[in-house]
Amino acid sequence: MQSRIDLNADMGESFGPWTMGDDAALLDVVSSANIACGFHAGDPDVMAGVMRGAVARGVGIGAHPGFADLQGFGRRRMALSLEEVGNLVSYQVGAAAGMARAAGGALRHVKLHGALSNMASTDAALARACLDAALRVDPDLIMVVLPATALEAEARALGCAWAGEIFADRGYEDDGTLVPRGSEGAMIDTAEAAGARILEMLRHGALIARSGRRIPARIDTICVHGDSAEAVGLARGVRGALEAGGVRLERFEGARG
Amino acid sequence: MQSRIDLNADMGESFGPWTMGDDAALLDVVSSANIACGFHAGDPDVMAGVMRGAVARGVGIGAHPGFADLQGFGRRRMALSLEEVGNLVSYQVGAAAGMARAAGGALRHVKLHGALSNMASTDAALARACLDAALRVDPDLIMVVLPATALEAEARALGCAWAGEIFADRGYEDDGTLVPRGSEGAMIDTAEAAGARILEMLRHGALIARSGRRIPARIDTICVHGDSAEAVGLARGVRGALEAGGVRLERFEGARG
Amino acid sequence: MQSRIDLNADMGESFGPWTMGDDAALLDVVSSANIACGFHAGDPDVMAGVMRGAVARGVGIGAHPGFADLQGFGRRRMALSLEEVGNLVSYQVGAAAGMARAAGGALRHVKLHGALSNMASTDAALARACLDAALRVDPDLIMVVLPATALEAEARALGCAWAGEIFADRGYEDDGTLVPRGSEGAMIDTAEAAGARILEMLRHGALIARSGRRIPARIDTICVHGDSAEAVGLARGVRGALEAGGVRLERFEGARG
Amino acid sequence: MQSRIDLNADMGESFGPWTMGDDAALLDVVSSANIACGFHAGDPDVMAGVMRGAVARGVGIGAHPGFADLQGFGRRRMALSLEEVGNLVSYQVGAAAGMARAAGGALRHVKLHGALSNMASTDAALARACLDAALRVDPDLIMVVLPATALEAEARALGCAWAGEIFADRGYEDDGTLVPRGSEGAMIDTAEAAGARILEMLRHGALIARSGRRIPARIDTICVHGDSAEAVGLARGVRGALEAGGVRLERFEGARG
Repeated sequence: MQSRIDLNADMGESFGPWTMGDDAALLDVVSSANIACGFHAGDPDVMAGVMRGAVARGVGIGAHPGFADLQGFGRRRMALSLEEVGNLVSYQVGAAAGMARAAGGALRHVKLHGALSNMASTDAALARACLDAALRVDPDLIMVVLPATALEAEARALGCAWAGEIFADRGYEDDGTLVPRGSEGAMIDTAEAAGARILEMLRHGALIARSGRRIPARIDTICVHGDSAEAVGLARGVRGALEAGGVRLERFEGARG
Repeated sequence: MQSRIDLNADMGESFGPWTMGDDAALLDVVSSANIACGFHAGDPDVMAGVMRGAVARGVGIGAHPGFADLQGFGRRRMALSLEEVGNLVSYQVGAAAGMARAAGGALRHVKLHGALSNMASTDAALARACLDAALRVDPDLIMVVLPATALEAEARALGCAWAGEIFADRGYEDDGTLVPRGSEGAMIDTAEAAGARILEMLRHGALIARSGRRIPARIDTICVHGDSAEAVGLARGVRGALEAGGVRLERFEGARG
Repeated sequence: MQSRIDLNADMGESFGPWTMGDDAALLDVVSSANIACGFHAGDPDVMAGVMRGAVARGVGIGAHPGFADLQGFGRRRMALSLEEVGNLVSYQVGAAAGMARAAGGALRHVKLHGALSNMASTDAALARACLDAALRVDPDLIMVVLPATALEAEARALGCAWAGEIFADRGYEDDGTLVPRGSEGAMIDTAEAAGARILEMLRHGALIARSGRRIPARIDTICVHGDSAEAVGLARGVRGALEAGGVRLERFEGARG
Repeated sequence: MQSRIDLNADMGESFGPWTMGDDAALLDVVSSANIACGFHAGDPDVMAGVMRGAVARGVGIGAHPGFADLQGFGRRRMALSLEEVGNLVSYQVGAAAGMARAAGGALRHVKLHGALSNMASTDAALARACLDAALRVDPDLIMVVLPATALEAEARALGCAWAGEIFADRGYEDDGTLVPRGSEGAMIDTAEAAGARILEMLRHGALIARSGRRIPARIDTICVHGDSAEAVGLARGVRGALEAGGVRLERFEGARG
């Protein structure tokens, strides 16, 4: 049974006068924070605030780069060349690294956001361009990837440090993809159910599909959400369930290969 | 007589489909490039291109942060708090540092752009906020400052590495400020006049005002322009005049105190 | 005693995935809506939604133009030329007029937002540039102005239709300016107090300062807020108090001179 | 033989400090101007300048809406919902209509730009959404469409005024699509060849493919370019050739059905 796990959440998604999520509450729950870099959400002031909070609490700081589409929150696909995507990622990773240092910390990981993440999960060339662009900024960054995707394959091929991520509150299909929202088993609603399921996965070192099928996977971090009070409550409950199950919460270190 | 000098120019000021300046030509003339960071000009693709060129030619890479005002090219004053300005600078310096690493180089210096530079040159608290924000990203960055300004005073007070800059093509008043455009002596039009005047300044270690008055100043770098064929020609001519005068062109190292 | 009054509120201040204010609730309270135009807040989707709601409820549609500063919410002063400000206003008023027609309605009024409003209230040339820019788009637009400001003076001088506005929840000084936040009497906290005070003002056709002094003023509309549940409650309470006092709530028509 | 034709060009594609194209020269050549609306190019100041020029010369003013992607110049496909696209178009058409009135003129037509145009030319639902969004702002606007596309079909179905457009400098395939750049016959390089070919098309009321095949089409306007001195020269030459051939240059009126 795996004895340690990381909890991550997307943060710093406020922008200017607009607030999204409860970063302060989440920073007390998670061990790693994926921080928006100003292109799909976040701005230098928001980043500075959440990074200072992360440094103060020992939460691992990650960049969460996305498409340059504030209005669409980076969720709308855009047709960029591989070179454009690479530069987009390098820029945002660099900005996050600088803000982390300015806050007295250091950037540890990178997780792609929204449509960029979805596209790179199924497109090997795009996945490679994104990973390579981040690693050119800092070859020691840990890349957070979804198991059984092009991103995992390319991270393995590049030999970079990576961390495999599962979702606390989403069901899986037999091929490792998420059960589509609206289908039965798409959402796990309670901390009890989520915690038990995650413990089961950690025990078997595998994703467990809603059919019961096991898909062997490295599970380094669990994604929780903070966009509502319920979400923060679920995140806290998951943390509690894992600790009660004997799993220590700790920032991931990633591993190569 | 000072035996070495740096030539710097603002670059990477194109944006998307729009071209500004002749970066390729300038990279063969200057020893340091101040590269726009995407807020008042530049974008990740433009930055990547000019940084690769700078790395290939051994030109020193600098960040040129400005206000978030593309339409106004960072030339319109904006009323930001000191904290907002600091975060704005840290972000852009971080992005530039990341892009420099992605291009195989490293960020060496920072020079403020446009209205932000003008405001920080006369406002000590703002100057301090900008310098501090850049140095929090990397304490070894060299800060380019205009002599006899609040920026120089604060750079000295902080004990950071800095480089004093003069303009190749602008006349000076007795207090070290520029002769306003439109007044007699505001512009130096020929490479001969500019070269001779700069050599005279280097000989005396002083700005020389149009009145002939000398204002002692550390002169580490000379700002040239590349926004027109004439400007590039003047820059080349200035370089030639300096070399003919026995001064070696070299990236500045900056100095503390 | 004045028998009719308008209630207005700033709306459409959400942006992309970020919500601000409770537009749906406010549309049931106010008779005029000042709708952000996408430069400091709002986007085409937000505008379309609130305008459809305004049309459905017979609420008067107004443009609420501001500086192009989403991150700063249009609250940070920017140094633009009069021509730039004029074009900025014409553009936003045009966009709002187009969106109003697309929603089956029509643009009736214009109220400046944030720093632009503050600057134009004390700078006659800027006030004139803003009013003129809006009126060039449509000479029949009603301009909402604060009494005893440069905006009122210039609206009178231009001979355009205008409406004088007071704040439901703010105290006034003897010169007609607002009591600064933080000072005693700056904020009126309850609907009862606000309603009674407004009725008193309408009775006398004057602003009533916290000293008791009366400043004669045309009062056509009362500004309420919707950024919190309390604010919406206060707005509802003010509406109820006015109706109980025998004042009919109705969209302003403005008047010239 | 058709006795009148319109010449149109994309204009107002400068942005802030960056210039694109020679609008002043083109305004003396064309009869209709498609003016960028600030989303993929253009800004309120650029729009004001080119619209004043168009009013002064009697050139018809059109809106040229595109995706909100300045860096990509609206040439990168974005996955927006039909509702989002509609609001995007209504907003830009409204802004252009307002700027036209502020300049003393009136908006007459709409032509989609870049990726949005390409997508709407082959996607009937998207074409309908764009046309409908423009017409909701003003039902008398003339929609410029490429013959034999979804845009033409939907314009006919809606019963709105439309104008069919051909390119002065591009060859056609047998199905009415453009010969891909790089293939033989893709580009028509000289004013003589372009003028003769257009006269032939006007004589037959048909596109003439490089194979010689005729595709019957309503030809109301010819698109010329102004992004280089050669392009402006070609545009002037085409105008001269048409006039020499007895065709009068005149703003299109569009027609329904």
